[in-house]
Amino acid sequence: MANTRGNFSFTALQPLELPTISKFKIGLCQLSVSVDKNQNLIHAHNSIKFAAEKGARLVMLPEMWNCPYSNDYFAKYAENFEEKDASPSFSMLSEAALSLGITIVGGSMPECDSGMLFNTCCVFGADGKLKAKHRKVHLFDIDIPGDISFKESDIFTAGDRPTMVDTEMGCIGVGICHDIHFPELAMLYSAKGAHLICYPGAFNISTGELLWELVQRARAADNQLFVATCSPSRESNGSYMIWCHSTLVGPNGEIIATSGHEETVVVAEIDYSAIQLRREHIPVQNQRRGDVYKFIDLVEHKP
Amino acid sequence: MANTRGNFSFTALQPLELPTISKFKIGLCQLSVSVDKNQNLIHAHNSIKFAAEKGARLVMLPEMWNCPYSNDYFAKYAENFEEKDASPSFSMLSEAALSLGITIVGGSMPECDSGMLFNTCCVFGADGKLKAKHRKVHLFDIDIPGDISFKESDIFTAGDRPTMVDTEMGCIGVGICHDIHFPELAMLYSAKGAHLICYPGAFNISTGELLWELVQRARAADNQLFVATCSPSRESNGSYMIWCHSTLVGPNGEIIATSGHEETVVVAEIDYSAIQLRREHIPVQNQRRGDVYKFIDLVEHKP
Repeated sequence: MANTRGNFSFTALQPLELPTISKFKIGLCQLSVSVDKNQNLIHAHNSIKFAAEKGARLVMLPEMWNCPYSNDYFAKYAENFEEKDASPSFSMLSEAALSLGITIVGGSMPECDSGMLFNTCCVFGADGKLKAKHRKVHLFDIDIPGDISFKESDIFTAGDRPTMVDTEMGCIGVGICHDIHFPELAMLYSAKGAHLICYPGAFNISTGELLWELVQRARAADNQLFVATCSPSRESNGSYMIWCHSTLVGPNGEIIATSGHEETVVVAEIDYSAIQLRREHIPVQNQRRGDVYKFIDLVEHKP
Repeated sequence: MANTRGNFSFTALQPLELPTISKFKIGLCQLSVSVDKNQNLIHAHNSIKFAAEKGARLVMLPEMWNCPYSNDYFAKYAENFEEKDASPSFSMLSEAALSLGITIVGGSMPECDSGMLFNTCCVFGADGKLKAKHRKVHLFDIDIPGDISFKESDIFTAGDRPTMVDTEMGCIGVGICHDIHFPELAMLYSAKGAHLICYPGAFNISTGELLWELVQRARAADNQLFVATCSPSRESNGSYMIWCHSTLVGPNGEIIATSGHEETVVVAEIDYSAIQLRREHIPVQNQRRGDVYKFIDLVEHKP
């Protein structure tokens, strides 16, 4: 037998508990991102406020909402979140969460720390406090000759752990864009009791058409939970054209709400009781074969 | 560290090798299954022959092609494959493979062995010999009140291992219907070097519309390999209505060929070099994080 002491065996699934608030609206801010960082901050703040006014109690931003998606910009736009006076993006999100009384999954921003750069998502509670920080675990390195070539690992250091966080709006697993290509991360979150996985992303148009909807729906259906994605809009600056289509998917793999490629805010209802219902109907969670395969989380999650 | 001696770590991926024949036609026989077993055998044989005449070198049959999909029939139609004189279905497949010189993934049949019943797929080489036998690992137990209720585990014993087999037509992983709902099995086959996963299936119409295409495409795209499915046709007898849509999916998650719900034979081309190309372009196989999660095959595969 494998020694799993201190690790988490994916097959030892806990029964799902619903949070106190199990039915609420989520807002997905599909923002246009410009080269003007200050403008991006104002723009994002307005969009978060708009979503909250539409009733969203959980608001999500895109990957790289404060910086054009390009290796040429990430270092210049990066902030050290530990130095709050020097981190206007972090501060804006914290203040918006507090003043609006909402949970924010803050898309992603370039983060500098100890001489390294990370592609990082910060999650804030309704008290304005940072609840969790996810550093993109799978960096986006792709090379399709004549189509698209991008190498995040030239610039970024990868995160070293999954990120799951208990919020008022349920237990949320976080992934950033390319992280969605790895079913392991979603399976890990599901086994640990996640209700929702949030993937801020800036999928490119080359792979987006074939894969963006597919992988979102697959993560939701395979793990019988909600998946939300949020992307910058098509008119954003950056080094490639973005596929967009910010989406909420339910635990049956069904698309609940989605957008086109224009700037918009998607507001849609999440009802976590749908997860319980689905798992009663098709109990794949209990049908996994712990005697045939075993899946281990090697990182002890310390939020 | 987990002790993985004797097991297979999913993250220790081997580079993909292509078989001698890497480009060929596959035939998916979407058969109408009746209560007349002898008729089913004649019908399947004719269909296999038709596929071979159309150039298919690998032919696949549906789940339960010799028996209506119903707990009322499985025991009555079951055969013991060890007793060849008493196993006309097994013999027909073996003889068809030999006489036509093709590889056959023989859908599934009810198998009796040592007082137990299994939902079993037999794979035959072009020499007519049995190359592998997969017993459905994840039995289909589902209960959607007012819609569909089915419990395979009332009748069948589940298989206890994955099945991957080297054939002239590449390295093939086998799953049967509900097995496709478990990404672990496909990930295991992919990590072990599979080119193609064959899932004979009889998906029901309730979950089929939302999930059948989704899960096939997800297994193919996530693992960057080919996926083929083969179903009975809509007019088949059995205890529920079948979704059908036998399909071949390529390693980009793209549908190469599919059918409607009528009886038909889908013949389509597989080119394994597409796997290598995809993996060069988007090298997710090398981007997995063996330091974050680990996936272990607990069964030593002894073909």
